Amino acid sequence: MFAPTYLDHNATTPLDPRVREAMLPYLDARFGNPSSRHEYGRQARAAVDRAREQVAAAVGAHPTEVVFTSGGSEANNLFIKGAAAQMKPGLIVVGASEHPCVREPARQLERSGWRRETALIDGSGRIRADVFAELMKQSPRLVSVMAANNETGVLQEIDRLAAEARAAGALFHTDAVQALGKMPISFRALAVSAMTISSHKIHGPLGAGALVLDKRVELAPLVAGGGQERGLRSGTENVAAIVGFGAAAELAVAELNEWTSRAARQRDALEASLLSLGAWVFGAGAARLPNTAFFAFDHVDGETLVAKLDRAGFAVASGSACSSADPRPSATLLAMGVEDEVARGAIRVSLGRDTQDEALARFVKTLGETLQGLRTLSAVAV
Amino acid sequence: MFAPTYLDHNATTPLDPRVREAMLPYLDARFGNPSSRHEYGRQARAAVDRAREQVAAAVGAHPTEVVFTSGGSEANNLFIKGAAAQMKPGLIVVGASEHPCVREPARQLERSGWRRETALIDGSGRIRADVFAELMKQSPRLVSVMAANNETGVLQEIDRLAAEARAAGALFHTDAVQALGKMPISFRALAVSAMTISSHKIHGPLGAGALVLDKRVELAPLVAGGGQERGLRSGTENVAAIVGFGAAAELAVAELNEWTSRAARQRDALEASLLSLGAWVFGAGAARLPNTAFFAFDHVDGETLVAKLDRAGFAVASGSACSSADPRPSATLLAMGVEDEVARGAIRVSLGRDTQDEALARFVKTLGETLQGLRTLSAVAV
Repeated sequence: MFAPTYLDHNATTPLDPRVREAMLPYLDARFGNPSSRHEYGRQARAAVDRAREQVAAAVGAHPTEVVFTSGGSEANNLFIKGAAAQMKPGLIVVGASEHPCVREPARQLERSGWRRETALIDGSGRIRADVFAELMKQSPRLVSVMAANNETGVLQEIDRLAAEARAAGALFHTDAVQALGKMPISFRALAVSAMTISSHKIHGPLGAGALVLDKRVELAPLVAGGGQERGLRSGTENVAAIVGFGAAAELAVAELNEWTSRAARQRDALEASLLSLGAWVFGAGAARLPNTAFFAFDHVDGETLVAKLDRAGFAVASGSACSSADPRPSATLLAMGVEDEVARGAIRVSLGRDTQDEALARFVKTLGETLQGLRTLSAVAV
Repeated sequence: MFAPTYLDHNATTPLDPRVREAMLPYLDARFGNPSSRHEYGRQARAAVDRAREQVAAAVGAHPTEVVFTSGGSEANNLFIKGAAAQMKPGLIVVGASEHPCVREPARQLERSGWRRETALIDGSGRIRADVFAELMKQSPRLVSVMAANNETGVLQEIDRLAAEARAAGALFHTDAVQALGKMPISFRALAVSAMTISSHKIHGPLGAGALVLDKRVELAPLVAGGGQERGLRSGTENVAAIVGFGAAAELAVAELNEWTSRAARQRDALEASLLSLGAWVFGAGAARLPNTAFFAFDHVDGETLVAKLDRAGFAVASGSACSSADPRPSATLLAMGVEDEVARGAIRVSLGRDTQDEALARFVKTLGETLQGLRTLSAVAV
């Protein structure tokens, strides 16, 4: 079978074979419902408990602070809507480059009387300190800023922002789905009220994520019912996915240093080649995830380039990971002040634990040839 | 490995090996994010599309009416909260024996100004026609009544109740997670506004369910973000689980007649034995699912009996499937007017496609011996 080279790990990752092995018994003989009071139920409950410990250990939290959800989008919605439901309407502040699953629930709050403000970012993708400080003076109740951006990989100084938000009396949440497994991350050290993480971004399965939550924070459940997850997320636990998430979290931390060193080296070499091909690299002036390169070439449409690379056997992304169906240029780039025309050229390469040097060398070669072809065509068209 | 006999299929079901086979490629090489615009993404999108067709066909709906969720609890919450969010607060009516994941979201609505009324059930577990008719005169906006009860298996006349609710101007929702795969069920024929179904109750995987939704109904999403599922349920689709749900739905319908005939025969034989052992069988006066027996013995505590059967190698349930951790007797039985003391004796046997006659014969033998032991003990104690 023909397998294209996968360079889109910020969208989703292949399942680590060790994670799959850990999951398979729970898709077979260990199929019980964790709420059942018999052997099958106890096996399932023990598996969920163990995964909770693994996930907690991976992010510097206590197991009782981990609320399993179906994924990152649900966890972000759970925090924003769940916390808001326990408060009087007030101000919510979200970063300018947040994922839609933070921006949209914040927008939904406006219907119940909340005011929403955006913490602007600078040209390198970082939250502007002056803007953030001004917003904190307005006594927000909720603040949500992502730890690392899915498109640019740009990091925010979460510990500092969280401290400012806390001083202003707000609950502070960070979407850390792109940070987990790509940098050290500690719920305790960041001192945030809540943090979102996801399994399928770290070579774990789809269908599991978590809201890591300070137990002093009161949340109304998004999914209410049987009372699972301390009443914060009802519904029969997705045992196999949770087991996979636990295994993936443990591996992500165990292999973090080795992989991120390799990824940084691979990414730096890739970007050197991109620059020599004439690329703009976005967010290069900021601290970034080690695995992400987001770039554009003058007069080359990103969608067209992605389609040509796809046919040539390379899977890369244009625009943002989870809304590639949306034809508008990246909202993150526009917020960084990148011109619309340049932003339309953006493509993203994101590396994974399985990415080989040899594949990147082939990618650079193919990219160069593809650009040459496009430029020849465009020269002919002119 | 010692494998206890599993007789708790209303709680969850073992994965059908054919379903597992269908899923495995999506836990391996076909790991893409359906939103990605490259080969991996297209493979995943095609798989989700195909599963949507399978699920729609299984329940007599159009594929565009299927909104995939992480499971039944989420689908129930999505309908109740999502529909309510698009309306002025009014009256919501829920059946007396609804699952907590219908009762709790209805209760949550009270915080935003809704009034909640319960449609009482009679001694056999059916919604009382007189009570329901009276409630419809109060112009409810939302009505939710389950198709089949998880504990007793008692069926409600959904088509008739839906017609009454529609005539009263209400949206009508039915939780059909226990009905699917155990009786013929058609979204179109029932003419409901929305219907909840779930994968793991039909020998499919955990982590997938659906709200089948009349497209004229407006819902606010519970999980907002990237805009998946026509904007009604954001978050990267759990591709492997959805593929499994599709396969399981197809098999459930293909094997419905054969299995339900066998299950009804097995259940009737089981209940004849139970009666000869002196059991009360709950809901026996009503039309019921063919696979469910809910019963009690005088002066025998249900929890104790379940624990003894567990040690003897039989997995059965006490109380309700999804909240067995809750020590209160079944809310459904209390709503049926069963005395607290009798309700405390309740245990449930629910059969699956894999249940063998021989296993049930062993179960009856062990149950008889266990009861004898308990009664001897209790005689000694007296």
